[in-house]
Amino acid sequence: MKAGLLYGPVHDDLALVEETLESLKRVDYPPLAQMMGLALSGGGKRLRPALALLAGSFGQYNLELLVPLATSVELLHSATLVHDDVIDNAATRRGRPTANSLFRNSTTVMLGDYMFAHAADLIARTGNIRAIRLFSQTLMIMAKGEIGQDLSVYDSRQDVRDYLHRIAGKTASLFAAACEGGAIVADEPEAWIQGLRLYGYNLGMAFQIVDDVLDFTGDQEEMGKPIGSDLLQGTLTLPSLLLLERYPNNNPIQKLFVRPHRQEHLLQAVEMIRNSDIPEVSFQMAQTFNADARRAIQILPDSPARDTLIELAEYVLERRS
Amino acid sequence: MKAGLLYGPVHDDLALVEETLESLKRVDYPPLAQMMGLALSGGGKRLRPALALLAGSFGQYNLELLVPLATSVELLHSATLVHDDVIDNAATRRGRPTANSLFRNSTTVMLGDYMFAHAADLIARTGNIRAIRLFSQTLMIMAKGEIGQDLSVYDSRQDVRDYLHRIAGKTASLFAAACEGGAIVADEPEAWIQGLRLYGYNLGMAFQIVDDVLDFTGDQEEMGKPIGSDLLQGTLTLPSLLLLERYPNNNPIQKLFVRPHRQEHLLQAVEMIRNSDIPEVSFQMAQTFNADARRAIQILPDSPARDTLIELAEYVLERRS
Repeated sequence: MKAGLLYGPVHDDLALVEETLESLKRVDYPPLAQMMGLALSGGGKRLRPALALLAGSFGQYNLELLVPLATSVELLHSATLVHDDVIDNAATRRGRPTANSLFRNSTTVMLGDYMFAHAADLIARTGNIRAIRLFSQTLMIMAKGEIGQDLSVYDSRQDVRDYLHRIAGKTASLFAAACEGGAIVADEPEAWIQGLRLYGYNLGMAFQIVDDVLDFTGDQEEMGKPIGSDLLQGTLTLPSLLLLERYPNNNPIQKLFVRPHRQEHLLQAVEMIRNSDIPEVSFQMAQTFNADARRAIQILPDSPARDTLIELAEYVLERRS
Repeated sequence: MKAGLLYGPVHDDLALVEETLESLKRVDYPPLAQMMGLALSGGGKRLRPALALLAGSFGQYNLELLVPLATSVELLHSATLVHDDVIDNAATRRGRPTANSLFRNSTTVMLGDYMFAHAADLIARTGNIRAIRLFSQTLMIMAKGEIGQDLSVYDSRQDVRDYLHRIAGKTASLFAAACEGGAIVADEPEAWIQGLRLYGYNLGMAFQIVDDVLDFTGDQEEMGKPIGSDLLQGTLTLPSLLLLERYPNNNPIQKLFVRPHRQEHLLQAVEMIRNSDIPEVSFQMAQTFNADARRAIQILPDSPARDTLIELAEYVLERRS
């Protein structure tokens, strides 16, 4: 199923987010315009801005406020990817060259800063202090999560609890903020705001777990990145942590972390995970978060927007790239 | 003269900014707390927050708003330095080890992001949308200025106009925002806000020019960095641009840019600048900006705060580190 069709009542309004993103690329400084074009051309699913619009549709659905907010969410996400590319030295993301493969590390850092500043300016356009503070605090949580991930690379003394804490920070917090922010600027009742926040948080957890499973089980072509890329960069995710739990001694991951250039250990770990029930067990954990997501919005009125949020939760589990 | 004494009527209130900065170091995640301690221990003069408080003292001097704003300015500045260190691979700044010399590049990027987010949260505490947007737009201008500097390294086809444009973005814009922001949250008349903005802008231009001259003429010990460090990193500043203008052919800078590891070309350029009137000519340009700064605040009522702003302008020209 194409993701776009899943966005139901807000499908058409997402074009306004796309237009705003396009307008950000028109900077009067050509090198920056080129970099912005590259950073924002990712062909992403625009899932996060769709969530913001959907969340806002239960209240005063004012596009003058919701479009800047939704665009800000996507820009925050894109800025994080740009800074992530500095981290990983990743040469491609989703099959396209990354900013960092075309520019120096330092320039890429400043590009990300420029995007963060733009995101801050967009959210400020809502004139809503609560939404503004939600966004700055979310970025603090995300950066903390990324620092945690970064400090734990090539360290096999981690467990599933550490992992869940990390993805809550680096991924779920922004999904939660997209939903909460939409509901806040649409001036919805507090209980709905909290329900949507919880929906976003749990959806984000499920999304990241599926993402991390696909890094092992997905198709290299469809994913646009090599299989096992997280592990290759020393990042332990749910499937690799489960493999470490099952084989605490003589595990290919431990060998890989001692000699990160030894491809055979990586291939062995990937094969062991693919041939086990670890992907299935991981999906079940994603499903649990998903069930919590759906439960959190039972408080909302029955409507096409709520149906869409439920379908989105299903899509997140079904996606294959 | 000690800088602290120069801050006149706001001297004591700067302690509140210092306290707020201290409180930011108390994070519940020890590695981040350690990094924040390092990033904020720079022993800086706190000139930017002092400007914000001084600017705010011409209106409703409310420390509940002005302290978060002033702290936000300093934090924005510090975050930029952290990200700058990723750029330069500088191992020390002002004699202390930089974040980047103790942590991986990627972790340092995320530390800067965390600090930007905190700065955004602090400015949001003012509840003043105009001040919030001023700050996000200032960060956009600063990032653009840094990108411009970064893309022009080791490129000798630049002139003084390019240089002035660059330092306006990377330095003067934050000085201007500190003053303008203070005046905005203190609800001052629009003409005062604009006067203070212009004062900050011109003071920032003078400050950066003096900084760039000191990089050639200063004392290595006092500066805490090697003489000619900008040039060594391929960055042309006013003194080196004037040297290029005077000796367009067979200039040691051109030779250095072809072979950046050849120390003798660097030493020759530094010596030529130090033994010429280039430092004096550069100081005169700083003085012109300074005169504009002082003229811009003639509109303000005669007061100890205005006297302090005038003394600060003098201090910026006199400082030697």
